[in-house]
Amino acid sequence: MTTLSRRDFVVAGLAVPVAASLTSFSNMPDADAAAPLAGPQVPGWYRYKVGDIELTVITDGTSRFRFADTHVANKTREEVNTGLAAAFYPPDMMATPYNPVVVNTGAKLVAIDPGVGEAAYASSKGATGQFQTNLKAAGFDRGQIDIVLISHFHGDHINGILGADGKLAFPNAEVMVPTAEWTYFMDDGEMSRAPAGRMQDVFKNARRVFDAIGRKVTPYEAGKDVTPGIAAVATPGHSAGHNSHIVSSGKDAIYIQADVTHVPYLFARNPGWHAFYDQDAALAEATRRKVYDMLAAERMPVQGFHYPFPSLAHVERTPAGYREIAMPWNTAL
Amino acid sequence: MTTLSRRDFVVAGLAVPVAASLTSFSNMPDADAAAPLAGPQVPGWYRYKVGDIELTVITDGTSRFRFADTHVANKTREEVNTGLAAAFYPPDMMATPYNPVVVNTGAKLVAIDPGVGEAAYASSKGATGQFQTNLKAAGFDRGQIDIVLISHFHGDHINGILGADGKLAFPNAEVMVPTAEWTYFMDDGEMSRAPAGRMQDVFKNARRVFDAIGRKVTPYEAGKDVTPGIAAVATPGHSAGHNSHIVSSGKDAIYIQADVTHVPYLFARNPGWHAFYDQDAALAEATRRKVYDMLAAERMPVQGFHYPFPSLAHVERTPAGYREIAMPWNTAL
Repeated sequence: MTTLSRRDFVVAGLAVPVAASLTSFSNMPDADAAAPLAGPQVPGWYRYKVGDIELTVITDGTSRFRFADTHVANKTREEVNTGLAAAFYPPDMMATPYNPVVVNTGAKLVAIDPGVGEAAYASSKGATGQFQTNLKAAGFDRGQIDIVLISHFHGDHINGILGADGKLAFPNAEVMVPTAEWTYFMDDGEMSRAPAGRMQDVFKNARRVFDAIGRKVTPYEAGKDVTPGIAAVATPGHSAGHNSHIVSSGKDAIYIQADVTHVPYLFARNPGWHAFYDQDAALAEATRRKVYDMLAAERMPVQGFHYPFPSLAHVERTPAGYREIAMPWNTAL
Repeated sequence: MTTLSRRDFVVAGLAVPVAASLTSFSNMPDADAAAPLAGPQVPGWYRYKVGDIELTVITDGTSRFRFADTHVANKTREEVNTGLAAAFYPPDMMATPYNPVVVNTGAKLVAIDPGVGEAAYASSKGATGQFQTNLKAAGFDRGQIDIVLISHFHGDHINGILGADGKLAFPNAEVMVPTAEWTYFMDDGEMSRAPAGRMQDVFKNARRVFDAIGRKVTPYEAGKDVTPGIAAVATPGHSAGHNSHIVSSGKDAIYIQADVTHVPYLFARNPGWHAFYDQDAALAEATRRKVYDMLAAERMPVQGFHYPFPSLAHVERTPAGYREIAMPWNTAL
């Protein structure tokens, strides 16, 4: 029989649970033995209040793509790498976080943009598709979600409407979608006129997801409350009917921006950079500048789907555009 | 019998566990009922790698003091409030996070600066004294800690050496202290010459803590490895023998700065501001500028005890001093 020390497990990089290791090798004095690497990351959720409303950021994980410049339509690889370096990111790689939010208004439990879907967990080797696991870790059951609120119809925002079984992932939820987005993407004429490639894929994927729930959705209007405490704001450009949401209670408010910017370390700092996924890049830039001018002037906090977890920041103006300033972590509520 | 709805619990602000609520009120349809506010914050730990070495930031919580300007020796209340506003902090309040780090070098499990101590948990109503609870949540048993590594002798860095019972909180650990700090603070002549008030209190508290463990410590020298993978660096000024630590493995390294700056949003951005607790403010400022010039030039990441959790940042130069840029959260290891 081969004798293993805890040191061997460390060298081999095996993720042996601490307790099991201690039991197996209890003849070794604790103070002289290395603990095995503990391995997993802390569960990915973070809670904060806006007035009386409770928000819980539930990360769905982070995708990493090579090359980053393929995500920027109007800049060269060299320019994008300069931007990455300015933000202390490594060259070439694009790190794209996905951060849904669960809002408890006191009357409704609302999940905003439930991520890429559970099916992605296995295919990404745990990098993404974490939403349902982290939702549970945060103390929620998927059956408690009253409303699934969708900002726009790109796959990373709607695929999580469906569970691993291809059915509605939130059995008691009403799915609410922007009227303008629904009107555009579910229109066969628009689909027939859309360019081949990515735009056709967006149309097809939206139909795949919404057909799986029998197109049973509740459209909502920009400029009105979706439900008391959550207002919708039209922020078009990234997609035809893209909406953002403002959660407010008393004097407190937060701007939940969806994809007004893609990752802030490139697209807030350089608002003239166009994300490859912008449907109408000029309109998206105009929307971005308008929203960010307001956020900076009002000193209003923003929650960004593609901001690094917990994706909460303030925004200030810079000569080149805007800069996101991560809000300090609150260690106790 | 009074009939309560889940809504009543929300209005009353009671922290009823979700599962219990669902059981008790299962006659209410889920889709129309509000979930009770879920309440607690996510456990306060975060894990990352430096080469083969695993680091886990274990927050001890955050203290809040009024007024912030009492923490800055050479600036007016108005100047401090201007600094707070620039960093999007509310006026007057001083938020001071405490963030110990556990380093698994592969051979030793090392806890650096274990915080304010468990006894503070009750007296602060859970705001601080969280280290042991979060250590356990991160998968560690206090008996596994091989080395408690101390940067300097201020109470928020050494009080956690002792448990709630007033004895060594880590039963199998060696306590390692900077030789220069030990020589200064344990010298009766130095104590007799120190000014009354805060400095006398530092001397007394250091003796209280180290006397409780029979002064059984291992002094370590600046400029050498404390243990393979962790080097000590003399960073004097904040206290006589203040040390920082560099964790390195292969080509990766991180600078664990202890109190080279107090909170970065005031003292990194304004390196000429003097924290009220600096023993030799001019020397502390010279050390701070030297370390931060190096961090900025080398683009070396820093882990700061008083940085907001997870207290990991890069540093860049600004016209006024330096700016900390929070490192992006890693959602999977």
